[in-house]
Amino acid sequence: MKAAVWYGARDVRIAEVGVPAPLRGEVLVEVAYCGICGSDVHEYADGPHAIPVAEPHPASGATAPLVLGHEFCGTVAALGPSVTGLAIGDRVAVEPNYRCGVCPRCRAGEYNICRHFGFAGLMGKGGMAEYAAIPAYMAHRLPETVSLEQAALFEPASVALHALRRAGTTPETVAVVGLGPIGLLTVLLAGERGVRRILAVDVSPARLELAAGLGATDLIDAGREEDTAGRIRELTGGEGVDAAFEVVGSEIALRTCLAATRRGGRIVLVGLAQEVSLDAFALVNNEQSIVASVGYRDTYPELIRLVAEQHLDLTPVVTSTIVLDDLVSHGFEALLGGPGNQVKILVDPAAHRTGAPVPHPPADRTERHR
Amino acid sequence: MKAAVWYGARDVRIAEVGVPAPLRGEVLVEVAYCGICGSDVHEYADGPHAIPVAEPHPASGATAPLVLGHEFCGTVAALGPSVTGLAIGDRVAVEPNYRCGVCPRCRAGEYNICRHFGFAGLMGKGGMAEYAAIPAYMAHRLPETVSLEQAALFEPASVALHALRRAGTTPETVAVVGLGPIGLLTVLLAGERGVRRILAVDVSPARLELAAGLGATDLIDAGREEDTAGRIRELTGGEGVDAAFEVVGSEIALRTCLAATRRGGRIVLVGLAQEVSLDAFALVNNEQSIVASVGYRDTYPELIRLVAEQHLDLTPVVTSTIVLDDLVSHGFEALLGGPGNQVKILVDPAAHRTGAPVPHPPADRTERHR
Repeated sequence: MKAAVWYGARDVRIAEVGVPAPLRGEVLVEVAYCGICGSDVHEYADGPHAIPVAEPHPASGATAPLVLGHEFCGTVAALGPSVTGLAIGDRVAVEPNYRCGVCPRCRAGEYNICRHFGFAGLMGKGGMAEYAAIPAYMAHRLPETVSLEQAALFEPASVALHALRRAGTTPETVAVVGLGPIGLLTVLLAGERGVRRILAVDVSPARLELAAGLGATDLIDAGREEDTAGRIRELTGGEGVDAAFEVVGSEIALRTCLAATRRGGRIVLVGLAQEVSLDAFALVNNEQSIVASVGYRDTYPELIRLVAEQHLDLTPVVTSTIVLDDLVSHGFEALLGGPGNQVKILVDPAAHRTGAPVPHPPADRTERHR
Repeated sequence: MKAAVWYGARDVRIAEVGVPAPLRGEVLVEVAYCGICGSDVHEYADGPHAIPVAEPHPASGATAPLVLGHEFCGTVAALGPSVTGLAIGDRVAVEPNYRCGVCPRCRAGEYNICRHFGFAGLMGKGGMAEYAAIPAYMAHRLPETVSLEQAALFEPASVALHALRRAGTTPETVAVVGLGPIGLLTVLLAGERGVRRILAVDVSPARLELAAGLGATDLIDAGREEDTAGRIRELTGGEGVDAAFEVVGSEIALRTCLAATRRGGRIVLVGLAQEVSLDAFALVNNEQSIVASVGYRDTYPELIRLVAEQHLDLTPVVTSTIVLDDLVSHGFEALLGGPGNQVKILVDPAAHRTGAPVPHPPADRTERHR
């Protein structure tokens, strides 16, 4: 089968490898779609970051070279020994988190911060391949009313949903600073959760327009606005928002969030910045909270319900669907070209096999796998 | 009457002023004790910080020179017009917070972050005087079983109690970094609230010893320990504490708290630092929260209940009781002498009148006002 294998920075090869045999407790999934995540782009551009190269990852046992891709879904093609509750032909969304199950955080149900936490497709073999063998606990069976194209977005939507949960009781007003896939899905899910006022902030007019379509009530072009936080306060009666989501990963965005949030409000930190400097005096006097959000837990069942019962549509964030052979040229390189052109790119590893032509941009959102 | 009046940095005068007449909605309190807060010391040493000098404070209408002191209690000596629910002779603890009552935070019950928030004794006239006229809403009537010496500590104990509430559901293990009055009261109240393991951190062996007497289970001398956070993790099975309280107001203490707290845990920021630098990458990956805590709200009723019914004793943090004339020499200057010698100093403005001699250190904890 074909697979996208990470060998090193700028060295991701579309290679012919053997179809993996599902081990005890594993299922083999015929991959329908695998989204490209910012993390994948980082690993391609200047990795390794999370990919294990020296020591095998404690949960997966894997080291590079390994198959990339953690935002995937597909159809169960084979069962390893001792798998129950799943059958060949089941359509599944993959929640790609390894967890040990025995560390204090796992025992508390917080498996997203497991001591040996890892992602299939970064710390273990992933889904940018025709087939992937995964632990059966990662597979969530889909009802008929949930398409595989929706399911391909459950992973980034989970990050957004977890961030919204980390904001605590549903806020009335939020700012979402940074409109990549996670930011856009945060806008969409905030509306779904009943947030009354959703202020979307980005430097890209195209992404702002997308956010408007997903439910943003106010658009702020941070490239043109001189004082983004001041504008947010102005739009919220001088008070600031109840909660701000930092989905960029930069000190500037964090400072914008702090200044745009009301006294007693919450800043949810989703983006991965490095060392940042902030005004602790103002933080205390305004009694704000900076709440970090990493990964997700227990999100797939809610997303399945939202799509199946509330007809939530996650697919507007998909800007193109490509074949595996085009992963580097039309995937990684397109996303490295800067914001605005592409948001979420899905890879369809089966396209060459079915013979169905998968066009490059503009997006093809027909649901061939339903 | 005698009063401690702030005129400027290093210029606090024990002056003879008129007894204030209680205005509409005010009561006149004959002050029994007024504690010296770190904020008072800062105003003395290099103020003004919070004291209004140019514009009158919006809530109090006051500007300097003004009477210092916000940690006070006493006996109602006179009632202004329209005061109900209080009578002359009532013993009261004073909750010295101005609030507007109409801003969004006040309407949400979060009056500690009122838009026009202020303290009597910093932004308005305070209690380092024989008498103080205060809005009646600041007075909490004391049951007979609560002494005025306990009540004098309700203000700093409120800061500690609010910080503990900000830690969320009662943690099992906490670290308290910084053992000034607030840190020590946090140790005491953590035990009262059922925290199983209380790790106390300071550079002063004397304060660590005090913390042990108040319920700290583990003492860490940050002056001798090379890796304070590492030691805390070691003492908590390698995980770190559920919650850490930063009660110093420094970047080093904040970094210690972050490194000493488990994944998913909470750092409660009580101390007032300035610009701080922190590792946002680690913060996100460990999914920690930095929760600021400023002042308090709705704490006095719980403290009254704890002292009256649970026999909670706050007075071990009092290291001396002085007369008003000694405020600068045995109060501010003693506290500026560095940590370790003094913790909480109470001023007894009535001592000269009753003729009761109030000794300088060592502490005199007899409850003359009960």
